[in-house]
Amino acid sequence: MSEYAPSIEKLIESFEKLPSIGHKTAARLAFHILDWNEEETNQFVSSIIDAKKNIKYCSQCYNITDLDPCPICANEKRDKSIICVVEDVRDVAAMERTHEFKGVYHVLHGSISPMNGVGPDDIKIKELLARLMDNSIKEIIIATNPRVEGEATAMYLSKIIKPLGIPVTRIAHGIPVGGDLEYTDEITLTKALEGRREM
Amino acid sequence: MSEYAPSIEKLIESFEKLPSIGHKTAARLAFHILDWNEEETNQFVSSIIDAKKNIKYCSQCYNITDLDPCPICANEKRDKSIICVVEDVRDVAAMERTHEFKGVYHVLHGSISPMNGVGPDDIKIKELLARLMDNSIKEIIIATNPRVEGEATAMYLSKIIKPLGIPVTRIAHGIPVGGDLEYTDEITLTKALEGRREM
Repeated sequence: MSEYAPSIEKLIESFEKLPSIGHKTAARLAFHILDWNEEETNQFVSSIIDAKKNIKYCSQCYNITDLDPCPICANEKRDKSIICVVEDVRDVAAMERTHEFKGVYHVLHGSISPMNGVGPDDIKIKELLARLMDNSIKEIIIATNPRVEGEATAMYLSKIIKPLGIPVTRIAHGIPVGGDLEYTDEITLTKALEGRREM
Repeated sequence: MSEYAPSIEKLIESFEKLPSIGHKTAARLAFHILDWNEEETNQFVSSIIDAKKNIKYCSQCYNITDLDPCPICANEKRDKSIICVVEDVRDVAAMERTHEFKGVYHVLHGSISPMNGVGPDDIKIKELLARLMDNSIKEIIIATNPRVEGEATAMYLSKIIKPLGIPVTRIAHGIPVGGDLEYTDEITLTKALEGRREM
């Protein structure tokens, strides 16, 4: 006999499909939902259905959006001549939180990773190159993650974009603010040294 | 401007309503769902709707169940004369995992907690007393949690059930198996001492 009633077991299994949700957490979430009233349940369910229905990719930057073009690409105040290239839509949100970047984005939806069978054609690189064709682009800032795949992607992009005469920059690597030298790994520390600037 | 498209923000907010899910985890879950295909999404949504529709309380033990009476109460092999009283349906599952208890349960759905305004009438105590009226009950095992509220509930139940001539027992408190004397709090250790048995 299973632990709980079949409908609950099924609900728990559903939650277990979500990332970083183990059996115990899934059970806690399932029981929490059982305590909800009808309105709360409907709100939860319809937020899932609505998101799946409304969300699409922006035809310019491939960020996910309810509207096409997305609010960033549609914003007159953003500098369309500077494109920040990121791996994931969550990276756009991270950059936006800085309130520092006034250009636009291009979301690759992944990074080149031969180990996982992901090549340049599997991510939105063609789409990025298409955006470079109108000669209005002044800078490409590559903000892929500082991991093997992100670095490989950055190298690849730099190699194919530089010949077009467009400056390509990479965001700086170094010790995070509030970080601790003692606990910083050697590679980060090496990058921090290499990237030192006059004070 | 919010971080993400409105539909996603709403989906993230939905997940944030779940216990122990903060903003970052909620965002991760939301994005995971956006990656699902239609079938996966439908399965998830319908498991919620089905659980809410099918789940009811067992009219005997107040465990949650798809069927009334629940499989435990309906099981001919369970000893109906021994009732184990627990606070929560999850406690039933915990007891069942031991495969040791062959009686039936009574789920109180809470514990007496004057601090939180929960009195004896707010949990399923009346319903427990009603089950004791047919004189077939040989023992009540109180397995409420070893916290202030659980102890208060145990004391209360013991006081009203003992006069009916039904033996009331309390599950043992002590050092957990695999536990460490050094890291055991004094109260548990005191209980462990009090509960010592001849070897």
